[in-house]
Amino acid sequence: MLLLFTSLSNPSNPSSPAFNLSTCKLVNLQTSSCNNCHPGALYHTLANDGKARAGVLCTDNGEIPTPAFMPVGTSATVKTLSPEEVENCGVKLILNNAYHLYLRPGTDIIKQAGGLHNFQNWRGAILTDSGGYQVFSLASLNKVSDEGVNFQSHLDGSFHFFTPECVIQLELSLGADIIMCLDVCSPYPCELPRAAVDNQRTLDWAKRCKTAFEQSNPVYPWRRFLFGIVQGSTYPEIRQISAQTLLDLDFNGYAVGGLSVGEPVTAFRDLAQFTVDLLPQHKPRYLMGTGTPEDLIAAIGMGYDLFDCVLPTRNARNGQLFTSTGKINLRNAQFADDFDPPDENCSCYTCQNFTRAYLRHLFAAEEILGLRLASIHNVFFFQQLMRRAREHIISGDYYPWLKTWLDNYAHCFDY
Amino acid sequence: MLLLFTSLSNPSNPSSPAFNLSTCKLVNLQTSSCNNCHPGALYHTLANDGKARAGVLCTDNGEIPTPAFMPVGTSATVKTLSPEEVENCGVKLILNNAYHLYLRPGTDIIKQAGGLHNFQNWRGAILTDSGGYQVFSLASLNKVSDEGVNFQSHLDGSFHFFTPECVIQLELSLGADIIMCLDVCSPYPCELPRAAVDNQRTLDWAKRCKTAFEQSNPVYPWRRFLFGIVQGSTYPEIRQISAQTLLDLDFNGYAVGGLSVGEPVTAFRDLAQFTVDLLPQHKPRYLMGTGTPEDLIAAIGMGYDLFDCVLPTRNARNGQLFTSTGKINLRNAQFADDFDPPDENCSCYTCQNFTRAYLRHLFAAEEILGLRLASIHNVFFFQQLMRRAREHIISGDYYPWLKTWLDNYAHCFDY
Repeated sequence: MLLLFTSLSNPSNPSSPAFNLSTCKLVNLQTSSCNNCHPGALYHTLANDGKARAGVLCTDNGEIPTPAFMPVGTSATVKTLSPEEVENCGVKLILNNAYHLYLRPGTDIIKQAGGLHNFQNWRGAILTDSGGYQVFSLASLNKVSDEGVNFQSHLDGSFHFFTPECVIQLELSLGADIIMCLDVCSPYPCELPRAAVDNQRTLDWAKRCKTAFEQSNPVYPWRRFLFGIVQGSTYPEIRQISAQTLLDLDFNGYAVGGLSVGEPVTAFRDLAQFTVDLLPQHKPRYLMGTGTPEDLIAAIGMGYDLFDCVLPTRNARNGQLFTSTGKINLRNAQFADDFDPPDENCSCYTCQNFTRAYLRHLFAAEEILGLRLASIHNVFFFQQLMRRAREHIISGDYYPWLKTWLDNYAHCFDY
Repeated sequence: MLLLFTSLSNPSNPSSPAFNLSTCKLVNLQTSSCNNCHPGALYHTLANDGKARAGVLCTDNGEIPTPAFMPVGTSATVKTLSPEEVENCGVKLILNNAYHLYLRPGTDIIKQAGGLHNFQNWRGAILTDSGGYQVFSLASLNKVSDEGVNFQSHLDGSFHFFTPECVIQLELSLGADIIMCLDVCSPYPCELPRAAVDNQRTLDWAKRCKTAFEQSNPVYPWRRFLFGIVQGSTYPEIRQISAQTLLDLDFNGYAVGGLSVGEPVTAFRDLAQFTVDLLPQHKPRYLMGTGTPEDLIAAIGMGYDLFDCVLPTRNARNGQLFTSTGKINLRNAQFADDFDPPDENCSCYTCQNFTRAYLRHLFAAEEILGLRLASIHNVFFFQQLMRRAREHIISGDYYPWLKTWLDNYAHCFDY
């Protein structure tokens, strides 16, 4: 028996693939504020406050209010959490890693399962990265040519070859709603000549990805959207070339890559602002791999809509919780008899039901439940941050709120 | 702020400690079948089928239909599961280990938290073992005298001394509904002289436990019940002495210890039957540390009411699932493309939402969610087994059902 998970409702109808805007509740509710509504558009702006935007991504697997933070589900699971727990944190869009899933369990298994949504029983939307970042950071002996990249699996040393075309086919087979082009992410620091070569290859590959995407047949009965990735390391002139070329290719959305890779915070902020200003108003803007709460709300203030990072889940597994008054580490002995909730201002499952003392005990005893309860809190905290940011963009006081929020957070007693 | 968890309803009223039978729904519903109803009784038989009994344990933290299987929550958490998940599996009574909790986080912390129920946010009832089994199996350099047992912590090598009196105080401070006497569990095999000495010490300690229990002041506003433990290794004559002495001491319930410690299955079954026949009808009978589904339903057929074992949760974490047609191991490659639920006859959360292929992937990728989903299934499976057993005792066809169940289970393709 093949489990069909009928509860996973995909509102799309294969016989009428054109998106009907009337199904998008968020846009309908505030349609007068949306200045780029047209049938089939992925992104709609609902409010602006300075450069900050509140909007919605309309996918066939749900509407995602923006700004939005995607928890990372590397291997088709947001580590330690069930899909219901992720959903209950308010998440409507997760990121899965194409590289990891290609290697294990393999594309065929996920295709047989009916795609990633069915495989992991996730009722929301999914974005897959292209695997490019992992090929360059995790795999060994990777060798890039104009054609693609040869690499050895970090799991078993087996040899593989990714081309822009086969990565698009991989991502389409996985069945995400939003897929990313294969790119070359320059390391930091990076000399200008190498950054230019990496970027030119990224642009050549983006063009091939776009062609492969347009020529592909639908694998699943929901719409798929393709994002281009702006690279260019720390060089504004290369980032400008990158953005312009990608804009000419007309992607459904634009990501900014190659930041949050070790550069100083001032360089990160300058480059993030410079690059986002190159991107069009009517397309979603995704800052890849960011980040800390303070970087996220800064980037929202610059005009970014979409983010992903392993920070909330990875740090949770190390015992670090993000709270409204800063970070705390649950392993600290001072929490042994602290019967307050982890964050008094938080309404997540963990804070509503458990004390710091209990969580500290779970971490001390190396009990798996501790990793989960910490992950629930951190994922919720990041979603709550996005909700608050959105509310304040809509109410037009985003920047004063940002300052107040940072002041509280920077009390930040980092245990 | 001290979290009080008002949702954890303890129906007891400190000003009227006498238990009101009218609050016990299970007994009221079928009160005519209960031949030992009297106010304050912990256990009520509701149906007999041969030696098998269906009954109810009436605690101030909930009614527990019997036969009942207690999942083990060693360190105040049933490993990998949240309290809600344990509850959703149908569990109304869990076991926590006094030895582990005494060492970590320590009795004071749990007392400050308002007891074990509050500490771990468990809305059902709790039984704590005495720690005796762990002192003899886990701790090093343990040295027994008539007074008590000296041991070194398996965690940090620190020295500790358990007496029957201090163990009762420990368990009362932890706040369980049902607590166990400190006993000496003879190993297997065990020469008769040693078994006799161990048993005599167990009996001396039982008497001291009873006295300490009766002289203790209430720590929490719910009733506590004390169980004696029948020892005697593989020697029926010692078990007879043990049972008779404990019966004279009049405990709230009786446990049978020293079985499931490595003896052959025939010895286990003969001794389990011999010993349970020595116990009174109107008290609950607890077979400690058992066990496999086949041993559980055999023991229910002998007249046991209560069980605990780490088997469902420990085996789950090793990838082994108990299903209606036998055991399967999720790590097996044959499940890689098996899109059936783990057990087609199971209505647990895992079987309703995930496939064998997904679970196999989670285990292959060493994802923590896999351990949890497997644990949910196994805990549910054991609870379901108890529910079925109870139904068939009530309907009077327990033994034919047992045979049919075993036939299906013994198809038992053990991957």
